[in-house]
Amino acid sequence: MQIIGEKINGTRKRVARAIAERDDAYIKDLAVKQAEAGATWLDVNAGTHPSQEPDDLIWLIETIQSVVETPLSLDSANPAALQVAIQAVNKTPMINSISGEPDRLNGVLPLVAEHGCQVIALAMDAKKIPETSAKRLEIIRGIMSETQARGVPDDHVYIDPLAMTIATNTQSALVAMETIRGVREEYPRAHLTIGLSNISFGLPARSQINRGFLMLAMAAGLDSAILDPLDKQIQAAILTAELLLGQDQHCLNYVRASRKGIFD
Amino acid sequence: MQIIGEKINGTRKRVARAIAERDDAYIKDLAVKQAEAGATWLDVNAGTHPSQEPDDLIWLIETIQSVVETPLSLDSANPAALQVAIQAVNKTPMINSISGEPDRLNGVLPLVAEHGCQVIALAMDAKKIPETSAKRLEIIRGIMSETQARGVPDDHVYIDPLAMTIATNTQSALVAMETIRGVREEYPRAHLTIGLSNISFGLPARSQINRGFLMLAMAAGLDSAILDPLDKQIQAAILTAELLLGQDQHCLNYVRASRKGIFD
Repeated sequence: MQIIGEKINGTRKRVARAIAERDDAYIKDLAVKQAEAGATWLDVNAGTHPSQEPDDLIWLIETIQSVVETPLSLDSANPAALQVAIQAVNKTPMINSISGEPDRLNGVLPLVAEHGCQVIALAMDAKKIPETSAKRLEIIRGIMSETQARGVPDDHVYIDPLAMTIATNTQSALVAMETIRGVREEYPRAHLTIGLSNISFGLPARSQINRGFLMLAMAAGLDSAILDPLDKQIQAAILTAELLLGQDQHCLNYVRASRKGIFD
Repeated sequence: MQIIGEKINGTRKRVARAIAERDDAYIKDLAVKQAEAGATWLDVNAGTHPSQEPDDLIWLIETIQSVVETPLSLDSANPAALQVAIQAVNKTPMINSISGEPDRLNGVLPLVAEHGCQVIALAMDAKKIPETSAKRLEIIRGIMSETQARGVPDDHVYIDPLAMTIATNTQSALVAMETIRGVREEYPRAHLTIGLSNISFGLPARSQINRGFLMLAMAAGLDSAILDPLDKQIQAAILTAELLLGQDQHCLNYVRASRKGIFD
């Protein structure tokens, strides 16, 4: 399971303040803790106005890279900001994200292709998220034909099937799982990732739903997720799913995590 | 989800003592609590020598039926004990269990057919549990052709795919899930049930594994399980899986359970 650590995100108040005040200690701490908790990538979202975004991204990237070597996931829909940010990273980054929306695809995909980036691709078109997995797969086929046409290898693409809240549509998790299975079948080398928290929006006991959904999505074929790697219960859910899905040889990771008190 | 409450089982020391001492208060308490927690069936296992089993089963059945109306699952491989027990129940019981083992099948199935019982059918043959889901499905086909030949409707059969511990075979949960999906496809009207705790035998943090497995098995098509209905974390796992699998209309059960503190 590849974890994309979500914590350095300027749409969160505390992070926005740290960015505005250039509080590097706060950002470094988030970077180190997520890396230590096993994040494969660190998401970096400045959350600021496009005119300010390049400066803020550069500051974030340099601050993070001064303390960890974990590769970054540059989280922006703004090609100009991404272009500048890509120059500042030490390791080839992931780009978060493209979608079937033509402007976004045409603005961001050339950067991905040129720099050999990994890229998250959302199963949505022109800002609309289709209700059925069949229509989401249609959009994904459109995106994949573009990435393939530009020479981006399938295993550089992290498809996000999109999980809307179950509060307004009880089929929502099922549609996401069906989309995951569909992608696994049609594009076996592509990765599947997901933003975990939407699924429970508006419902009580949200972390219980998020964890359960993560496990079911992993059983469907999810091999990555954008989440809080410091959440012990999420870590427990991932370790348990990996154990049950035959991905934990000799049960070693599970037994070790148990000794560390992850399941207490 | 149909829950078969597992707590009245004479292979557990405390229950064995209650049976030996005819401690009816202890048994009644287990019956009432499991019924109140939502058990669809109460499993009744005397756990005693075949010569003593009929007397003990009768005492258990009468004791339980004096306080609850929940139908019983008579848990015995002994046709003579079952024959006597079936006479003592107020409601048509479930029989736990038959398997592909000819003696067990021929000894128990006639009772099931004659009395219109529901029955648990284990995917094993002559006490051997095959490693692959293909072989388990072969055994299940053999059992189903016998139940059908005797006029037992498919929806009276609760197939247990059998989950061995993941400690000795990391594919164990996957094999059980594959078997569940296979049965769902070939016998859409049959139920699927499972004894929950074997999967984690020999591993630490067992309840975490049991709950995770329950959720993944429900996603594969499990609609019943033999478990402890008083375990709040198991209840939480079931409610979460039902919510995620689109089985909780308007999310009502989940929201109500949250108000009751099930997820705290």
